[in-house]
Amino acid sequence: MHDIRKLDMQAGILDENDHIADHVNEHMSAHGILVVNEMGAPGVGKTTTLKGIFKHLPEEIKPYVIEGDIESDIDTVDLKDKGIDAYQINTYGACHLDAPMIDHAIDHMDLSKRGILFIENVGNLVCPAEFSIGEHVMMLISTITEGSDKPYKYPLAFEKADIIVLNKVDLMPYLDFDEEFYMKGVRALNKDVPVFKVSSKTGEGYKEVAEWLAKRASELEIKEHHHEGEHHHHHG
Amino acid sequence: MHDIRKLDMQAGILDENDHIADHVNEHMSAHGILVVNEMGAPGVGKTTTLKGIFKHLPEEIKPYVIEGDIESDIDTVDLKDKGIDAYQINTYGACHLDAPMIDHAIDHMDLSKRGILFIENVGNLVCPAEFSIGEHVMMLISTITEGSDKPYKYPLAFEKADIIVLNKVDLMPYLDFDEEFYMKGVRALNKDVPVFKVSSKTGEGYKEVAEWLAKRASELEIKEHHHEGEHHHHHG
Repeated sequence: MHDIRKLDMQAGILDENDHIADHVNEHMSAHGILVVNEMGAPGVGKTTTLKGIFKHLPEEIKPYVIEGDIESDIDTVDLKDKGIDAYQINTYGACHLDAPMIDHAIDHMDLSKRGILFIENVGNLVCPAEFSIGEHVMMLISTITEGSDKPYKYPLAFEKADIIVLNKVDLMPYLDFDEEFYMKGVRALNKDVPVFKVSSKTGEGYKEVAEWLAKRASELEIKEHHHEGEHHHHHG
Repeated sequence: MHDIRKLDMQAGILDENDHIADHVNEHMSAHGILVVNEMGAPGVGKTTTLKGIFKHLPEEIKPYVIEGDIESDIDTVDLKDKGIDAYQINTYGACHLDAPMIDHAIDHMDLSKRGILFIENVGNLVCPAEFSIGEHVMMLISTITEGSDKPYKYPLAFEKADIIVLNKVDLMPYLDFDEEFYMKGVRALNKDVPVFKVSSKTGEGYKEVAEWLAKRASELEIKEHHHEGEHHHHHG
């Protein structure tokens, strides 16, 4: 079924992407900026989740945002209105962001403050899971309105997640969401991933997500200082 | 940014796909079977919508189903349990079905009765809109839980839809769904597409969708008889 040339080329594209993703990761680490790849299906509340998290980030951690959309800049305009430093990427058809797009975007951003770069990927539960974009943390946004079978149907996204945010839990009384079945699917793919329940209606859960991410960002700093120390040692 | 070889190859793959899609379409038309490409993001209720429609299809129209999933056969097992003739395709990573997959699947199906073949595409609002799989009708499943900005963010899917099913309308009291904004987006892309509101909780709307599809299926038969007549004439 598969054309050998096509497979070769895909492998080549993935290799090149991973190479640039490594570069982005190192570059951002050197700036003390944690990179979060935010992934999820259309309409699960990716931008809403970011806004919830921003309310609870410690002051010393600056939020940066890159918005990935096929077309439109609705979310970027929305975030900028709220004073967030947001950069728009339009993929014009492509179903995911890739590392070269991010490498290009960060060239246009002022990265002088430590913080967290949230990259909101294209709304899609398939393609974004396959392409590293230089992230330290893969954050999957899931919602109870999607139904409890999603880990079984889209395993790669759940397998690759470093943190899962389960959104819209305020709607629990009106839906037949089988939480036990959902968590069984999650655990089969990803034994230790933290799962945080949130709701933009009640505001619950965002504080805990923000704390988890802030902790990761501070660990990055420690690692970086350590790394810089080592570097210095080698040259000294 | 784009590699010329890559673009050439993509164009070639699309040409080949369209060629096979035409073949599938003609083959199914000859059997008096309307092909419906069912598209929508993960968790919008694609399988649930099919089950709702099946309750209202006239007896002379047999429902056939092809289920497209990355992995898993949850929906196929569910449909077979309910006596529906369902065939499973797993794409193992690919974010959409393509025409060769359908061409292969229908070789394994008994198509002796007139009816409608519902092909449930991979849960994705981006890739499936780009690949014809031989459908007569592109049916987009959308839901109010996704938010009202979806036509603006995923224009191709809304532009290509021949019918839009807006699902989960029973949740309207609990969500901030801006129907006017949603419909403005739909109409900017697709002036005349019918939009049916449905709910699996209340059962509303499926009868109207089933009637619309049954009418399209009966028009197909008339066209086919006419075509066969012409064919006969040429050979006679």
